[in-house]
Amino acid sequence: MVLISFRTVPSEGILFLKEGIMASLLLARRVACSSQKNFCLFTPGSRCISQAAAKIDIEFDYDGPLMKTEVPGPRSQNAEAVHFFCNYEESRGNYLVDVDGNRMLDLYSQISSVPIGYNHPALAKLIQQPQNASTFINRPALGILPPENFVDKLRESLMSVAPKGLSQLITMACGSCSNENAFKTIFMWYRSPGCPDYSILSFMGAFHGRTMGCLATTHSKAIHKIDIPSFDWPIAPFPRLKYPLEEFVKDNQQEEARCLEEVEDLIVKYRKKKRTVAGIIVEPIQSEGGDNHASDDFFRKLRDIARKHGCAFLVDEVQTGGGCTGKFWAHEHWGLDDPADVMSFSKKMMTGGFFHKEEFRPNAPYRIFNTWLGDPSKNLLLAEVINIIKREDLLNNVTHAGKTLLTGLLDLQARYPQFISRARGRGTFCSFDTPDESVRNKLILTARNKGVVLGGCGDKSIRFRPTLVFRDHHAHLFLNIFSDILADFK
Amino acid sequence: MVLISFRTVPSEGILFLKEGIMASLLLARRVACSSQKNFCLFTPGSRCISQAAAKIDIEFDYDGPLMKTEVPGPRSQNAEAVHFFCNYEESRGNYLVDVDGNRMLDLYSQISSVPIGYNHPALAKLIQQPQNASTFINRPALGILPPENFVDKLRESLMSVAPKGLSQLITMACGSCSNENAFKTIFMWYRSPGCPDYSILSFMGAFHGRTMGCLATTHSKAIHKIDIPSFDWPIAPFPRLKYPLEEFVKDNQQEEARCLEEVEDLIVKYRKKKRTVAGIIVEPIQSEGGDNHASDDFFRKLRDIARKHGCAFLVDEVQTGGGCTGKFWAHEHWGLDDPADVMSFSKKMMTGGFFHKEEFRPNAPYRIFNTWLGDPSKNLLLAEVINIIKREDLLNNVTHAGKTLLTGLLDLQARYPQFISRARGRGTFCSFDTPDESVRNKLILTARNKGVVLGGCGDKSIRFRPTLVFRDHHAHLFLNIFSDILADFK
Repeated sequence: MVLISFRTVPSEGILFLKEGIMASLLLARRVACSSQKNFCLFTPGSRCISQAAAKIDIEFDYDGPLMKTEVPGPRSQNAEAVHFFCNYEESRGNYLVDVDGNRMLDLYSQISSVPIGYNHPALAKLIQQPQNASTFINRPALGILPPENFVDKLRESLMSVAPKGLSQLITMACGSCSNENAFKTIFMWYRSPGCPDYSILSFMGAFHGRTMGCLATTHSKAIHKIDIPSFDWPIAPFPRLKYPLEEFVKDNQQEEARCLEEVEDLIVKYRKKKRTVAGIIVEPIQSEGGDNHASDDFFRKLRDIARKHGCAFLVDEVQTGGGCTGKFWAHEHWGLDDPADVMSFSKKMMTGGFFHKEEFRPNAPYRIFNTWLGDPSKNLLLAEVINIIKREDLLNNVTHAGKTLLTGLLDLQARYPQFISRARGRGTFCSFDTPDESVRNKLILTARNKGVVLGGCGDKSIRFRPTLVFRDHHAHLFLNIFSDILADFK
Repeated sequence: MVLISFRTVPSEGILFLKEGIMASLLLARRVACSSQKNFCLFTPGSRCISQAAAKIDIEFDYDGPLMKTEVPGPRSQNAEAVHFFCNYEESRGNYLVDVDGNRMLDLYSQISSVPIGYNHPALAKLIQQPQNASTFINRPALGILPPENFVDKLRESLMSVAPKGLSQLITMACGSCSNENAFKTIFMWYRSPGCPDYSILSFMGAFHGRTMGCLATTHSKAIHKIDIPSFDWPIAPFPRLKYPLEEFVKDNQQEEARCLEEVEDLIVKYRKKKRTVAGIIVEPIQSEGGDNHASDDFFRKLRDIARKHGCAFLVDEVQTGGGCTGKFWAHEHWGLDDPADVMSFSKKMMTGGFFHKEEFRPNAPYRIFNTWLGDPSKNLLLAEVINIIKREDLLNNVTHAGKTLLTGLLDLQARYPQFISRARGRGTFCSFDTPDESVRNKLILTARNKGVVLGGCGDKSIRFRPTLVFRDHHAHLFLNIFSDILADFK
């Protein structure tokens, strides 16, 4: 049996100290496999991965979960829809601490929206620098009265990670506003006299937000749309791939071809209906809808169809963007010849917004506009986050830790096929299916009480959405805990 | 001739000092009318207002405009749609400083979104308190994992100013998302089986945001809607009042009655069309549409019509809310017996959101939901802003300064009827009409180069949207400068 070897990291001193935070809670990752039962990955005989922890420049993580009560605990009162109340001051790195002092490895990261972990010392430092105070307390109307350094800040942050070919950027306050305004930008670009009603083609299982324009393209759950008036816009089937992929190559090719054919049919049909398709919106991985993947080839062909029919190609990277697939934008995996036309983002990017090609610039000022158009204080934080992603090579970390995670999930799937199927993922953006919703929900609750926060998606999937500072050893830690859970699960 | 008397305020020390900010730029409002030509209100013979400046606890304002270049100046390069680039670090109180060092009295306050002036020392202090850092760097998914003190913070801030009868609150990131979700809340509340398509009745000239649901109720400018698909929802006429109001009592009553009749007709018509009106949305003062007012009686009757027909009554206080009319919410002036059902806010409130009655709570969790649901760092700032509004009695200040401003505008209107008509306002939320758009725009540019930032609205109106720390002496200062401009205006 191969044990996982954990590099023993000496306490590197306390790098993040605030009033009221006990030094004793901070990390010295004094972990050796022999000393902590949880760290022995899998039972004897199972496949194990020997993996040294990646070098971490700045240490601000805890050394593991620490549970004191059931979650939600006694102090999480008034929790109706909410899961539990959190102590964000005490949360660190990959660990979320609740109000009862339970410390959980967080693989959901606020619905995939925390880029580099809780209380990253570099961000804490930013806040405390007096020259930044003004950015946090004077929120400008960015479209008319931007701050002096605004263009530089954008160059340093968002423009430095602009997807190839998309030179134009507009920031927005959230993901829904980003997609709403991306739609409008596409309609303005498309405009053809005599065609009064345009549409956006979307896919079954898609989630693009919950405001009314976005909602017309969101089809992940019926409850989202009940009672809400919507547009008659075309909805194409999204491939439902069979796993393991290598065993179903032909089936999956046929399935993707069928979906693409339907896309073209719908474009033709809606043109006849005078609801011409001005744009196609797609997620690189359908996230809320159940972590549905398609091949890179599918997306390249979809891009070709968009071009062929004169529709804009809009990639929604709200959940997939920011590095969690191992590339900064998930769609960079596709190897497109002709870039996407528009790409929206939010969540891990801390601000919403969308990039677009120059030809998509509205033909007059203020056509895409609102009071705030984002928030420079988020850009300030994001600039530092992007620096850290580059400096600490976090995209490589994601690729590495993601491989460890997925390998472990495939192993668990082999051992517990009654609970786990269709293990899949790109980077740490991983997921698997469970037999049904009730098993899925029970697994999530059990894991939470063992100190791991997971998220569900679709009908019966569990999704992994850790931060970019999720390392190999976190993957091993999770796999150990989850392996124990599955061994006892009834 | 009566001169305006300004209380000489001794320098109270430098309360807000940051690196790089020169103490010499800070205010000691060493102003005496005799020593500064600009402070002599009106030429001899004109009506003047003797007004002592209100007591100000914390002094962080400048003592007047200071212009060094034309605006936009040489350093405001790349200004296409933007007006000019700003130096927010150097801006203070009611004064916006640009990158060329021009210091302007800001009566537009970032499209009405700055509550208590630039760089208020109390907000700067908040940022620097170590215990607040976590709130700025760990943005939670509020709907599922709120911070420990979240409920308390809301009680201390937003709930402490909840409009009467509206006990429920949901926060959102911006004004558009607030209205989008207010619409959805109304549709969910209205739901009647067999009625698939609901609508929201809005008014001509209204502005409720630019996302696609909001846009179906926005009618302030044609350019907002071109090329964008929309819903077939009813649009009623908004009263076009004649001024001065006291001379046109009967005409205005008839005009309001005509509009209300049309509202009822549309409700009946759209019910027959199977696009039943689930709610009516209205601004207390139509802002973007040209500062169009209606009487309190009009709104009381509109509320009655909503109740009579079973429609929700949604008041959009995104621009009018937060104290600028002299009450915290403009609709509190109406004296409604039965409160509004839903009220949306944003801008000066720093976070978006909407209050609603208990019966409007969605019947299941997550029906009104998104990743962030607002931002606790904005709530933190807002809690302090609301403390200051109460402690410094800023609503009374608004009433007082607003009276000074409107009295002065009426005086200018009497002297320059060729340029100014329909002077109107509530609190400091004042405006007047100019002969046409080109005169309006020229007046705004001229004022800017004399050190006053004004905003336009509608076709030919100029609107005043100062902060809540706009005082009598700022009103006098503006009136003096503008009087000079009008005297020379060609």
